[in-house]
Amino acid sequence: MTAKDTHRDNPYPHRHLLGIEGLHPHEILGLLDRAEEAVEVSRQIHKRRLVLQGRTQINLFFENSTRTQSSFELAGKRLGADVMNMAVSQSSVKKGETLIDTAATLNAMHPDLLVVRHHAAGAVHLLARKVGCSVVNAGDGPHEHPTQALLDALTIRRHKGKIARLTVAICGDIAHSRVARSNFILLNALGARVRVVAPSTLLPSGIAKMGVEVFNSMRKGLEGADIVMMLRLQRERMNGAFVPSVREYYRYYGLDAEKLAYAKDDALVMHPGPMNRGVEIDASIADGAQSLIREQVEMGVAVRMAVLEALAANLPNNETI
Amino acid sequence: MTAKDTHRDNPYPHRHLLGIEGLHPHEILGLLDRAEEAVEVSRQIHKRRLVLQGRTQINLFFENSTRTQSSFELAGKRLGADVMNMAVSQSSVKKGETLIDTAATLNAMHPDLLVVRHHAAGAVHLLARKVGCSVVNAGDGPHEHPTQALLDALTIRRHKGKIARLTVAICGDIAHSRVARSNFILLNALGARVRVVAPSTLLPSGIAKMGVEVFNSMRKGLEGADIVMMLRLQRERMNGAFVPSVREYYRYYGLDAEKLAYAKDDALVMHPGPMNRGVEIDASIADGAQSLIREQVEMGVAVRMAVLEALAANLPNNETI
Amino acid sequence: MTAKDTHRDNPYPHRHLLGIEGLHPHEILGLLDRAEEAVEVSRQIHKRRLVLQGRTQINLFFENSTRTQSSFELAGKRLGADVMNMAVSQSSVKKGETLIDTAATLNAMHPDLLVVRHHAAGAVHLLARKVGCSVVNAGDGPHEHPTQALLDALTIRRHKGKIARLTVAICGDIAHSRVARSNFILLNALGARVRVVAPSTLLPSGIAKMGVEVFNSMRKGLEGADIVMMLRLQRERMNGAFVPSVREYYRYYGLDAEKLAYAKDDALVMHPGPMNRGVEIDASIADGAQSLIREQVEMGVAVRMAVLEALAANLPNNETI
Repeated sequence: MTAKDTHRDNPYPHRHLLGIEGLHPHEILGLLDRAEEAVEVSRQIHKRRLVLQGRTQINLFFENSTRTQSSFELAGKRLGADVMNMAVSQSSVKKGETLIDTAATLNAMHPDLLVVRHHAAGAVHLLARKVGCSVVNAGDGPHEHPTQALLDALTIRRHKGKIARLTVAICGDIAHSRVARSNFILLNALGARVRVVAPSTLLPSGIAKMGVEVFNSMRKGLEGADIVMMLRLQRERMNGAFVPSVREYYRYYGLDAEKLAYAKDDALVMHPGPMNRGVEIDASIADGAQSLIREQVEMGVAVRMAVLEALAANLPNNETI
Repeated sequence: MTAKDTHRDNPYPHRHLLGIEGLHPHEILGLLDRAEEAVEVSRQIHKRRLVLQGRTQINLFFENSTRTQSSFELAGKRLGADVMNMAVSQSSVKKGETLIDTAATLNAMHPDLLVVRHHAAGAVHLLARKVGCSVVNAGDGPHEHPTQALLDALTIRRHKGKIARLTVAICGDIAHSRVARSNFILLNALGARVRVVAPSTLLPSGIAKMGVEVFNSMRKGLEGADIVMMLRLQRERMNGAFVPSVREYYRYYGLDAEKLAYAKDDALVMHPGPMNRGVEIDASIADGAQSLIREQVEMGVAVRMAVLEALAANLPNNETI
Repeated sequence: MTAKDTHRDNPYPHRHLLGIEGLHPHEILGLLDRAEEAVEVSRQIHKRRLVLQGRTQINLFFENSTRTQSSFELAGKRLGADVMNMAVSQSSVKKGETLIDTAATLNAMHPDLLVVRHHAAGAVHLLARKVGCSVVNAGDGPHEHPTQALLDALTIRRHKGKIARLTVAICGDIAHSRVARSNFILLNALGARVRVVAPSTLLPSGIAKMGVEVFNSMRKGLEGADIVMMLRLQRERMNGAFVPSVREYYRYYGLDAEKLAYAKDDALVMHPGPMNRGVEIDASIADGAQSLIREQVEMGVAVRMAVLEALAANLPNNETI
């Protein structure tokens, strides 16, 4: 495929992927279609095309995330990119360098793709305005995590054939979850019915404006659900006073066979990982027949391949070596 | 060489390399022959064949080991693999994820080769049962370290022309050594006479059943030895009460010129590294004319190239890009 | 370009790059010319030639330096090398291994290029004597940092068209700066007039013999300067008693618009990074029209590409795969 062809087919004609917010449904669907192809490319070595050969991808992680970083690293390497990991917690930040200086320094090294995770909402947008390369948001504070929402949608679509009109119940620690937020936007854009199920202490303040139906009980929230998406209880992000007891939490909000039975018979279970088994989900459900949790990980690599390839095709100098 | 040829020549028709235990002598010799070729490939850049191009190798180290990890990383990269290092101590383990969840997550990313070091004996076997890719044991607790035993055998064979009927004295901290254990099995399988020389406090409880002759004195243990293999004194793995004094240990078990003179005149000295100079070995011996210690490191890369290539040839989808 | 051509054109016919000291001016200029080409190669993906394909580059950093290590990593990868990073602080050093053992171990793995940063002056020279590959000094204590001086010279030459007869004022923490020392040697070799501007507590003891003119006042030191090179105040390397107050330091030695006005109207501002904004340099100057600070980072990758390629061309076995 030549650079020209790549352009013509490109489902996502933008320089950055900073969030799901503002994407057109056909852009989301275009990326999902591209990711569907990437699943096969990833599984079958002879289908690989090194479309990122000669490209430099920098993974700039201000927060540790082995799982997400590995997924982006493999996605880039499978497409032939030179991937450089920078764990910034242990580097220049300690020397008092600002985010903008770090960004300007990296930019001067002429990367093509910058994959960024940062603990502050908006940091990724700030960075994108300062660099000449493409920026992919790999999670910015409680704000967005767009590739997670895309991989969740891809996983759902492969099993249900569609997203529209499905009932998706997102359960648990909504307040601290950028995954939830990106999923609200994406699922609404594609016409799903989105519910959240959580104790009121784990709901964000603006939940009323997020286009979701709110439930405090798993029984009512799961009734008729096609998809039950559990979230990790992020106790490490909570202030002392509101940290729920794990035992109480599991009793009321942990997904076990009894609570899953409230959902549709063919309901599917998802979790962005890493799981707290016995806290937000029972081990038998996590490993059970209705679970898509492993497949989400595989779809993660595919979605990131699709995103990296689409962004690279938009770079001004879009030949390969 | 086509995939078919690779198969035909493959000396090691198994999916994993979890230990030396259970290997047939001709499998061991086949891997050594393959490694012998890899020595030349590694030394001469124009002989390289990127047989792992498009393959994903993940180095999953639950214990730090710069030396072993580097050796596997270089081996994989010399064959064209995409290598991803994961130091798990600083990652998901902290978030309470189980070994099985980590394995399942990695497996979902479709690696081809998983190189694993873990502090628990048996962890690598457990992992191998849960993944679809090939697993190489890079050290599991006090259990096995098969590529170390293979590289030791390769080094010996290059100098003595054979393994059979050689007298090999393995000296020092046997109790904490997976290297010793893998060597016992391999050297016995190939017909060497294996001795151990150690104070009784540094012998493992089952030593009587390991097919080795036990000595407590270096003088008697080294008499007539062709190979003197010193082990690192692993004080970091010992409980307070039994930690020997370094000065006493060196006096009785440290290899110096006087003790080495008990062995054959053409005896060769080995050590898996990293060395405690002045503890288990004198610096003049470590750097002396009878020392093979540097060559062991080189053979390490060659053996790992041979193992990775052999395992990749057995993968269901064994084409390259 | 064949290996023969590479040899013929090679501006730098040595095995190592350990310092600027002892280089002939035509060698320095030759590397700068080669780096000038590398700027274009780095910017334009279709100009890449993978002259280091099959080569192994090990980045051996005994001190953390995200910036320098990243620059060398990208330089090597842009030329096709297999790059392996080793952060030694967290590895064998802890197990008591000596520098020489670490070097001998790495050498046995047959790397082609070893990029080393170490906290002790002279460590890199010691290492170079023990290994068979090429060694690049990426900073050895307060001694030298040759690629930094080369990138500074390249940046200056691109803007001023020459180095000879320029007046370069190097300001601030001279005492703790290997950057300053390598720059003194290089700038003198190419015929610049070198000044240092610093409080006497931040001058090294041998400054009188370093071929530079010493000033204690920014006003006098910057008068007529073509280049104002600010250094990072390395408070982390100072003993308690002599650490200057940041506020006092900025008042007398921090570069702001008022002090910069003492230099020539077309004077250019440089800084090796990472910057302490508001300590040695005002943010408006760092980001202002006279600043070359970002360009220095870009030139860093280009200079390192030139150095790595020149050294690789001198390796005994200088074919590529």
